Amino acid sequence: MSVVKSPLSEENRQIAGEALQGALSDLLDLSLVAKQAHWNLYGPRFRSIHLQLDEVVTAARTYADTVAERAAAIGVSPDGRATTVAKSSGLPAFPEGWIQDGRVVAVLVETYGVLINRMRARIEAMEKADAVTQDLFIGLTAELEKEYWMFQAENRD
Amino acid sequence: MSVVKSPLSEENRQIAGEALQGALSDLLDLSLVAKQAHWNLYGPRFRSIHLQLDEVVTAARTYADTVAERAAAIGVSPDGRATTVAKSSGLPAFPEGWIQDGRVVAVLVETYGVLINRMRARIEAMEKADAVTQDLFIGLTAELEKEYWMFQAENRD
Amino acid sequence: MSVVKSPLSEENRQIAGEALQGALSDLLDLSLVAKQAHWNLYGPRFRSIHLQLDEVVTAARTYADTVAERAAAIGVSPDGRATTVAKSSGLPAFPEGWIQDGRVVAVLVETYGVLINRMRARIEAMEKADAVTQDLFIGLTAELEKEYWMFQAENRD
Amino acid sequence: MSVVKSPLSEENRQIAGEALQGALSDLLDLSLVAKQAHWNLYGPRFRSIHLQLDEVVTAARTYADTVAERAAAIGVSPDGRATTVAKSSGLPAFPEGWIQDGRVVAVLVETYGVLINRMRARIEAMEKADAVTQDLFIGLTAELEKEYWMFQAENRD
Amino acid sequence: MSVVKSPLSEENRQIAGEALQGALSDLLDLSLVAKQAHWNLYGPRFRSIHLQLDEVVTAARTYADTVAERAAAIGVSPDGRATTVAKSSGLPAFPEGWIQDGRVVAVLVETYGVLINRMRARIEAMEKADAVTQDLFIGLTAELEKEYWMFQAENRD
Amino acid sequence: MSVVKSPLSEENRQIAGEALQGALSDLLDLSLVAKQAHWNLYGPRFRSIHLQLDEVVTAARTYADTVAERAAAIGVSPDGRATTVAKSSGLPAFPEGWIQDGRVVAVLVETYGVLINRMRARIEAMEKADAVTQDLFIGLTAELEKEYWMFQAENRD
Amino acid sequence: MSVVKSPLSEENRQIAGEALQGALSDLLDLSLVAKQAHWNLYGPRFRSIHLQLDEVVTAARTYADTVAERAAAIGVSPDGRATTVAKSSGLPAFPEGWIQDGRVVAVLVETYGVLINRMRARIEAMEKADAVTQDLFIGLTAELEKEYWMFQAENRD
Amino acid sequence: MSVVKSPLSEENRQIAGEALQGALSDLLDLSLVAKQAHWNLYGPRFRSIHLQLDEVVTAARTYADTVAERAAAIGVSPDGRATTVAKSSGLPAFPEGWIQDGRVVAVLVETYGVLINRMRARIEAMEKADAVTQDLFIGLTAELEKEYWMFQAENRD
Amino acid sequence: MSVVKSPLSEENRQIAGEALQGALSDLLDLSLVAKQAHWNLYGPRFRSIHLQLDEVVTAARTYADTVAERAAAIGVSPDGRATTVAKSSGLPAFPEGWIQDGRVVAVLVETYGVLINRMRARIEAMEKADAVTQDLFIGLTAELEKEYWMFQAENRD
Amino acid sequence: MSVVKSPLSEENRQIAGEALQGALSDLLDLSLVAKQAHWNLYGPRFRSIHLQLDEVVTAARTYADTVAERAAAIGVSPDGRATTVAKSSGLPAFPEGWIQDGRVVAVLVETYGVLINRMRARIEAMEKADAVTQDLFIGLTAELEKEYWMFQAENRD
Amino acid sequence: MSVVKSPLSEENRQIAGEALQGALSDLLDLSLVAKQAHWNLYGPRFRSIHLQLDEVVTAARTYADTVAERAAAIGVSPDGRATTVAKSSGLPAFPEGWIQDGRVVAVLVETYGVLINRMRARIEAMEKADAVTQDLFIGLTAELEKEYWMFQAENRD
Amino acid sequence: MSVVKSPLSEENRQIAGEALQGALSDLLDLSLVAKQAHWNLYGPRFRSIHLQLDEVVTAARTYADTVAERAAAIGVSPDGRATTVAKSSGLPAFPEGWIQDGRVVAVLVETYGVLINRMRARIEAMEKADAVTQDLFIGLTAELEKEYWMFQAENRD
Repeated sequence: MSVVKSPLSEENRQIAGEALQGALSDLLDLSLVAKQAHWNLYGPRFRSIHLQLDEVVTAARTYADTVAERAAAIGVSPDGRATTVAKSSGLPAFPEGWIQDGRVVAVLVETYGVLINRMRARIEAMEKADAVTQDLFIGLTAELEKEYWMFQAENRD
Repeated sequence: MSVVKSPLSEENRQIAGEALQGALSDLLDLSLVAKQAHWNLYGPRFRSIHLQLDEVVTAARTYADTVAERAAAIGVSPDGRATTVAKSSGLPAFPEGWIQDGRVVAVLVETYGVLINRMRARIEAMEKADAVTQDLFIGLTAELEKEYWMFQAENRD
Repeated sequence: MSVVKSPLSEENRQIAGEALQGALSDLLDLSLVAKQAHWNLYGPRFRSIHLQLDEVVTAARTYADTVAERAAAIGVSPDGRATTVAKSSGLPAFPEGWIQDGRVVAVLVETYGVLINRMRARIEAMEKADAVTQDLFIGLTAELEKEYWMFQAENRD
Repeated sequence: MSVVKSPLSEENRQIAGEALQGALSDLLDLSLVAKQAHWNLYGPRFRSIHLQLDEVVTAARTYADTVAERAAAIGVSPDGRATTVAKSSGLPAFPEGWIQDGRVVAVLVETYGVLINRMRARIEAMEKADAVTQDLFIGLTAELEKEYWMFQAENRD
Repeated sequence: MSVVKSPLSEENRQIAGEALQGALSDLLDLSLVAKQAHWNLYGPRFRSIHLQLDEVVTAARTYADTVAERAAAIGVSPDGRATTVAKSSGLPAFPEGWIQDGRVVAVLVETYGVLINRMRARIEAMEKADAVTQDLFIGLTAELEKEYWMFQAENRD
Repeated sequence: MSVVKSPLSEENRQIAGEALQGALSDLLDLSLVAKQAHWNLYGPRFRSIHLQLDEVVTAARTYADTVAERAAAIGVSPDGRATTVAKSSGLPAFPEGWIQDGRVVAVLVETYGVLINRMRARIEAMEKADAVTQDLFIGLTAELEKEYWMFQAENRD
Repeated sequence: MSVVKSPLSEENRQIAGEALQGALSDLLDLSLVAKQAHWNLYGPRFRSIHLQLDEVVTAARTYADTVAERAAAIGVSPDGRATTVAKSSGLPAFPEGWIQDGRVVAVLVETYGVLINRMRARIEAMEKADAVTQDLFIGLTAELEKEYWMFQAENRD
Repeated sequence: MSVVKSPLSEENRQIAGEALQGALSDLLDLSLVAKQAHWNLYGPRFRSIHLQLDEVVTAARTYADTVAERAAAIGVSPDGRATTVAKSSGLPAFPEGWIQDGRVVAVLVETYGVLINRMRARIEAMEKADAVTQDLFIGLTAELEKEYWMFQAENRD
Repeated sequence: MSVVKSPLSEENRQIAGEALQGALSDLLDLSLVAKQAHWNLYGPRFRSIHLQLDEVVTAARTYADTVAERAAAIGVSPDGRATTVAKSSGLPAFPEGWIQDGRVVAVLVETYGVLINRMRARIEAMEKADAVTQDLFIGLTAELEKEYWMFQAENRD
Repeated sequence: MSVVKSPLSEENRQIAGEALQGALSDLLDLSLVAKQAHWNLYGPRFRSIHLQLDEVVTAARTYADTVAERAAAIGVSPDGRATTVAKSSGLPAFPEGWIQDGRVVAVLVETYGVLINRMRARIEAMEKADAVTQDLFIGLTAELEKEYWMFQAENRD
Repeated sequence: MSVVKSPLSEENRQIAGEALQGALSDLLDLSLVAKQAHWNLYGPRFRSIHLQLDEVVTAARTYADTVAERAAAIGVSPDGRATTVAKSSGLPAFPEGWIQDGRVVAVLVETYGVLINRMRARIEAMEKADAVTQDLFIGLTAELEKEYWMFQAENRD
Repeated sequence: MSVVKSPLSEENRQIAGEALQGALSDLLDLSLVAKQAHWNLYGPRFRSIHLQLDEVVTAARTYADTVAERAAAIGVSPDGRATTVAKSSGLPAFPEGWIQDGRVVAVLVETYGVLINRMRARIEAMEKADAVTQDLFIGLTAELEKEYWMFQAENRD
């Protein structure tokens, strides 16, 4: 028995729930990855990228919260526990230990590339399932693509 | 070769580094656990505990950041990636799915109990290794014990 | 003669205008209902729900304002007078007099359920009439479904 | 059986309760009337009066809240539901549809005139019933008479 | 010889001074009682009432300050020392040790009941002595009766 | 013909209007006197009294505004022009040129003494004329008597 | 070779890029036109419209920034240089020199009318090209149509 | 004997002191005139001009304070008492009683015209006397001429 | 049976509990003493010391809260009731009635001297009992010794 | 016939008007150029310069507003339309398309160099025409030369 | 080779550079002197002057920053190192150790006297060298002369 | 005779006083050194390091204030005059003139290294002398080691 009565049909609830749970894992992982980079970064661009990464962390946490509360609102229990994130995130693994500034930027470019592909697939999957969840994914993707642009611009000499 | 020259002797650097890395895993896990509870909670006390848990999340994130940056400051690369947290956190596992308000409070009481024991052991371990890190752990423990009191008070009829 | 030249065709203006006027009555009624509950509430959960209801009031007033100004923007005079709201709101009647905390939550769960159904019908009705008004309804519905989840979570032991 | 033990004698509780309930209906109606005008207004003075009316709305909502909570405090359940306001407000009916700026000002001058007469009668009625409620009405009337002056000043060429 | 020349006749100065000193003891006691409850509270409603009590503390401190400075303004030295409060407060004694949430609410309902009776007697005593001090007491009583309502509403199942 | 229709009878309008006009002159004069002292002050207590006087200026300006807008609200044109203030203020003349700190305090003690007597007479004059204006004078007098106490306390060794 | 890898196919990138560049020129022109009116305005409604125009300027600058950064995010270099705006803006030319208040309002009504038509065409053009850019145009158009209503309301006697 | 040792020669101190005292009287008068208009204004433009006049009041008070403190800084006791302002202000007399909006604007245009002529004469008089005081007058005049423009723009149909 | 499970051994809980309860009485007394002085003060330094004492009050209240919540956190019920403070505070009695500025400063110097001795003894008592409580006392003592310096500096000619 | 009566002679009005109009074109162009660079920038220093350029935009917009309102204040209609800026700006043309970080800095160094020469010529031209406008140009030039220093410092290895 | 291309001729760059470097040493010294007094002050006026001195510190630091950045802007490397300040400040030496309140004021009066003479000489030296730097010195001197007045006023019984 | 009665024994007062005076010189020097670098910096990383250095300045000033006020609190007169700092700071001399970004970072790394060694020696020296001063040094060192880490991370390619 569910705690929340879904405003969606059972089929759409499952489609939307799966997309939201996937997005939740990816976004919580992004928040942890960006903090990891924030702490382990070195190189002449340290300060600028250190600050930029904290903005990524703050944004990723907010996106994750939005996505998880949307899951709850359609009657799906969101799972954001460490083991779940570790197992199900679709983002590339982040390297261990101290990491140079240029490499951090390159890794984030790759990470955003993967994440945006996954988000755009979720937008499509929502086309028939739920207009409200789709609109939320569209809004998130706009933000992610903006951040992606900035890391790409920063990644070119 | 390390990025940061430690203000500590190599032996003390290792002792303090281990304690800080352990605290980092625990505290990041606390932040994820409290968010999980924040989203999956139900029961008549929903709103009050929902808000309280977000304060726990905010505090745990700040504590984790302090601890990770202290590790960097003594020349130890902090590791806060999802897989590391999932593997090395010392906190009890948090149950899956929707969870009743009273049970959330009970789980948090247990979680804080375990965490505080681990932090007090770290305070002792720092006695000879590093007064600065010890002071940081003492300050954190004061906050955690205060939050522990509140969940205990809330856990009794 | 209208004060405002509509950016829509006359047919779409009428479809969108009707949906917006309906939403306006519902949302102003929600703001009055929630204030009524805020004042007449009693029971052990008084303070928590008293505060929660004021957040509902604030949100409902903002939603109503958005909806009414959208009506004006498409050349439809919005009607938010007491007699109109009393006559045309689609929300269930709110009981008279002092009311217990648990019952307030149950009544709001029912109220949100009805309102969300009506809003989802309006989203559909806008599909061909006006993408801008539809987007506004989608955004509102996301908020209402989030509040609905919270009252449901609070309504279960 | 009442939820709240009145600090007044039963007779005074009834006198004060009636006056407060009357004021509540009038003030909620004022808030809806001013919003209606805010949305339907047109004419060269649109922007200035549009902003002024939102200040009236904000003030009227605050006054209504004060009055309703005073009713509760003396053990009288306040009634601010749309049907009650529609039935019992003493303010003149506000015209339907788009409305010219000069006419809005004139209607508000008339509305304030009626409202202030009703409030001054309530001040007198409280003379023996309750000094605390009387003081609250006196404070409100001061504000209403100040707003009345401004609309009158604006209503003359 | 007094530090401050009273704007009142000697007789009225004494009447008003006595009422103000009595109110000062009561209100400082209320601030200490509410802090005591804030710290010693337990039970499922802990967090909500813990926060509510801090609002009572803040309000009571502000009221006490207003009353004491009014005493000074009419040429009467206010006495707010611990021994004076302990000796002369008219509020019921607050129980020792940890205290359950429901009992805290019940004790506060009783405490406000007593305090409001005493304040209403002071309003009457001021009728002839000083309109300025009377107005101050009326304003304070309005606030206290509002808080009393809330604790009563919270005290009923 | 007046711009504003008075809520008072013609007789009461005249009584209240005269009292308000008198208060306006006194309070504008107080604001100018306190600025004059603020600029011309010298002595070891310069900084402390310089700041205190600016608080008097700010308060006096606010009081004057309140009083003038009350006059307008009852249909009486307020007169706050320099020549009117110079002619009709009831405050003692302030000495020319640089002025020692102790003397400033003594002059303000005298000034407040005169002003408060005049305000208390106005409170009485309002007893039958207008409860709303009377309440405004009572509130103002409370503030003035508080400031009077402070200057007196500062005026004694 | 482009700085930014587009999340869109080359065809869609070109369609969206063209629409975004067109919107950028229009919106920068709107910001310059509104400032021009802000400075050259005269007439009895000067202050009210002077302030309103600055809100238009602020909004138009924000819209332009959003649109330009979206272009960059899809891999299209935005062009907001004066010569480009002068050449490619679709808004009507704004008259030279001092300009009367009523005429400013009429010119802005015409300008918004043209701009909204162009924006609605861009919404349609995005239907297949990019849902994210479309959503951005829908949000912008909602704001522009709201501002359009206000200038129309202000433009009628 | 002066309280303050002037940084200027005695001759220049006198020239600058005279100019500053003249400016002080004018500016205090402007602040009283604008408040008088703020209170006595009527007409369709009431609200807009009522707010504009309060900005004039605030600015004029700040200018007067700057000028008076500059006088003190060069060893000249500033005189801002009501009688001095009444006697020595160079501004045209402001009419008694209620005053129409258009006439208020016209009076202020005239007043600013006179004041700016007097300020420009003071700028010239400072050429040799004191560069610091001159710079202060130049800054003030820039502000006054900006306000003058606005009232002129508002004064033309 | 205690509400809170102490993180300390029973022996250390008792030692720390006693020290915290003693500090609580002293600090609440300090807050009441400083308010008493704030109200009863007179002399040429009135304003400066009146403000300084309010800072002492605010600080003392915060310290008391910190200490009481630490007691609760180690499982000891804090007692801050008026009778307890009156009985157990270790601070010197504060004189009755109006009190001269110089004497207030002297009394506070004496009071801080006594309090700091007591706090330093508590720091030592915590050496083995609880590092967390000790750190809290050290932090508080740093603040108290800073305030002590300021009153001493103010106490010498 | 002009809207605004100039405080300057006709000759000086023309000299000052020409200088102000020239400055307006240059400064609006600077604001558009800096936004263009803000959007099209790439390279390792992306984030730092992206933020710096937005500060330039904000400053340039403020300067342009100051200059345009000064023109109005001396009776000269300012012209800030896109076509006028495109035609009359004295700044070097900014390159099309994406642009590398180092090149952006170099282009801005060149741009500021040209602009400052033009502004210094305007300061001289004002020597006899208008001290108020001259002072405004001097203040602006101080800001521009400070920004110029920063870009130069950033432009050297 | 210089980092910054000066907007001044080489001769003027040297004259202005020398004046700015002199002012920098003086102002940094003022900031250190005022902090020294802030810490070592004693006497009955302790609190008032302690606060006043911190305002002097804040102002002096801001002035020094302005002056140093102006030096950089004209291509002169500013030198604000401790040894340079110690060697080249023109301010009188500040006495060692604790210092009485009256003596602090007297020393600051002397210090400001010296500093203002030096600043006025720098204003003259800039007459031909650089109008921008001169304007900056005039603005600073206005502030310093205002602070000088206040210390003088405070220095007289 | 000292102004302040030390809470420490004479021996401990001397030990703590010496350590605090040493720290004061070092920290004031750090604040001057960082400002010097802030002004004289050049290179592609100019903006980022320019901002970072201002954070160092702000922090160092706050640390110095804390240390100096602690000295006063234990009865030791702190000495922060330019000559004292120049003579007794233990930091390496900062080079004269313009300085490249990479070199600034390297110099700061060296400076922090020296300073932290000195601070750690002071922590040890306080072990027996004063727990309160020791705790203050520990807190400061934590901050300095964090800043040290950042400059080191920035100092490596």
